[in-house]
Amino acid sequence: MAAVPRAVLALSGGVGGAKLALGLADALAPGELHVLANTGDDFRHLGLDICPDIDTLLYTLSGRANESLGWGLEGETWQAMAALEELGGEAWFRLGDRDLATHLWRTDQLRSGSRLSTLTAALASRLGVASHIHPMSDDPVRTVVHTDRGELPFQRYFVRDQCEPVVTGFSFDGISAARPNREVMGLLRQKAFGAVVVCPSNPFVSVDPILQLPGLWPALRDSPAPVVVVSPIVAGLALKGPAAKMMSELGLGVSAVDVARHYCRRYPRLMDCFVIDESDAILAADIRQLGVDVAVTRTVMKSRADKQGLARFILQWSGN
Amino acid sequence: MAAVPRAVLALSGGVGGAKLALGLADALAPGELHVLANTGDDFRHLGLDICPDIDTLLYTLSGRANESLGWGLEGETWQAMAALEELGGEAWFRLGDRDLATHLWRTDQLRSGSRLSTLTAALASRLGVASHIHPMSDDPVRTVVHTDRGELPFQRYFVRDQCEPVVTGFSFDGISAARPNREVMGLLRQKAFGAVVVCPSNPFVSVDPILQLPGLWPALRDSPAPVVVVSPIVAGLALKGPAAKMMSELGLGVSAVDVARHYCRRYPRLMDCFVIDESDAILAADIRQLGVDVAVTRTVMKSRADKQGLARFILQWSGN
Repeated sequence: MAAVPRAVLALSGGVGGAKLALGLADALAPGELHVLANTGDDFRHLGLDICPDIDTLLYTLSGRANESLGWGLEGETWQAMAALEELGGEAWFRLGDRDLATHLWRTDQLRSGSRLSTLTAALASRLGVASHIHPMSDDPVRTVVHTDRGELPFQRYFVRDQCEPVVTGFSFDGISAARPNREVMGLLRQKAFGAVVVCPSNPFVSVDPILQLPGLWPALRDSPAPVVVVSPIVAGLALKGPAAKMMSELGLGVSAVDVARHYCRRYPRLMDCFVIDESDAILAADIRQLGVDVAVTRTVMKSRADKQGLARFILQWSGN
Repeated sequence: MAAVPRAVLALSGGVGGAKLALGLADALAPGELHVLANTGDDFRHLGLDICPDIDTLLYTLSGRANESLGWGLEGETWQAMAALEELGGEAWFRLGDRDLATHLWRTDQLRSGSRLSTLTAALASRLGVASHIHPMSDDPVRTVVHTDRGELPFQRYFVRDQCEPVVTGFSFDGISAARPNREVMGLLRQKAFGAVVVCPSNPFVSVDPILQLPGLWPALRDSPAPVVVVSPIVAGLALKGPAAKMMSELGLGVSAVDVARHYCRRYPRLMDCFVIDESDAILAADIRQLGVDVAVTRTVMKSRADKQGLARFILQWSGN
């Protein structure tokens, strides 16, 4: 009998997903974690190509995340932004001085023709990250939020307008022409993963852009690795970000059941297990009705031990 | 009899020229100083369009110049550069955090189709500079230094290689297709200037690129305003930068006489007066032999009073 592969693939957006990714990185041997990162939030701003989710993963997995802000780099300074405001420039997207180096370097290298995946690997290596961070695609995909104020590029909705507009739907510009990350697709073909974990990221703007890349979710469904999804909704609330507000505005219920239903409807037979928080244990039966296993544990990650605990629970469930 | 126009046009490179520009700005009424800035030093670095001489003028005339460094902004911080070095990026050209905002804003606006002259005026206005700073051209001109190590883009020679290569000559890429600044050409046609001052900037890499723009120096020669050139060489030394080293490597003598000869040969009948330092008073007769007036004063500018004193001397000489 072949040994179960130890490598794990995690699908992640930004902050919430990066927390579990950090737990998984701690729980696995160095290099065993592969993270497939959403790039639908990427945008060009002040001439810079910015990849917020990749950077959150890089900064979190390298121990540089700013815990108090909840985003960006620890010990960050803001001189460039202060000077930009003096010049009357657009300062609604806060770029820290050290963070700017990442964007400058990457933008320059992208314009010279490098692939985003190559550059992400180089950044991870420079920052001492042993895990593999893969952009979901080297081709541009741009999340557009459809709202009562019209269609808004994601960061305009998310940062500039602080998620205030009422959401009516989403689209992902460029997705039909985008190829999923070639390294990850290759590893899937090689059956290299022992588990696939969908982090507790926003289903609509963090996970859907990844899963809807042509060919990606069928490849995950058809791989022997179990697909474990962690609910981003706990006790009817989003732990971070606008997921609950979006679900409500879209006319969905706001509970872990509704998240599970979203994944089951859009991606039939993809999910093997749905992980919910112990405070939602009562919902387990309803979720099982959808035809998926349910695992109940503490999913709220405050401490490093919380992150590791949830990661170990998932790995144990999936036989790793 | 018409009143002598009070406006003054100064031709300037970076640090040395900006000192006299500051003195002229102090000595004139607000808005009477127009500076035509060298852009041959401009370059693209890390994807940013950087205009070192324009920025030195902006920072100096707005009182933001870093006096101790001799370049850049006062109170500057260097977090972005430190982070860039960690990422293995090119950090030989030191971009301060606040300075970065200037480059980001300008680069973004240039890519959106704005003219450099419009953007320079906007920056001056934002920084509270009453003088008019004009790029010598809105078209790209790039100074190339011919050396014993081959042809080097100016900043590679000047900053990265610290002027070490032996100079054999210069060329200005793009200059034959570049049009001189249209506002300044318009003002020259209107005979708006009471004096033209060539600041004590490097003749080869700061002043020549300006004067060699098609049609510019004949327009200066034919304007009624006297053209006053301040020697950047004092007692056989360049006060700042590689002018003396260049003259020596080019087989020229290294004295104020040799500078005057350079201007007289390349731009016949352009110069009306050559200003030399009192320590070079003995050279006055030799310079008069070239057919130009000579004015002797203290040209070394250490204090603000020095800058104002030299400016007032020049204005007085030229009848302003």
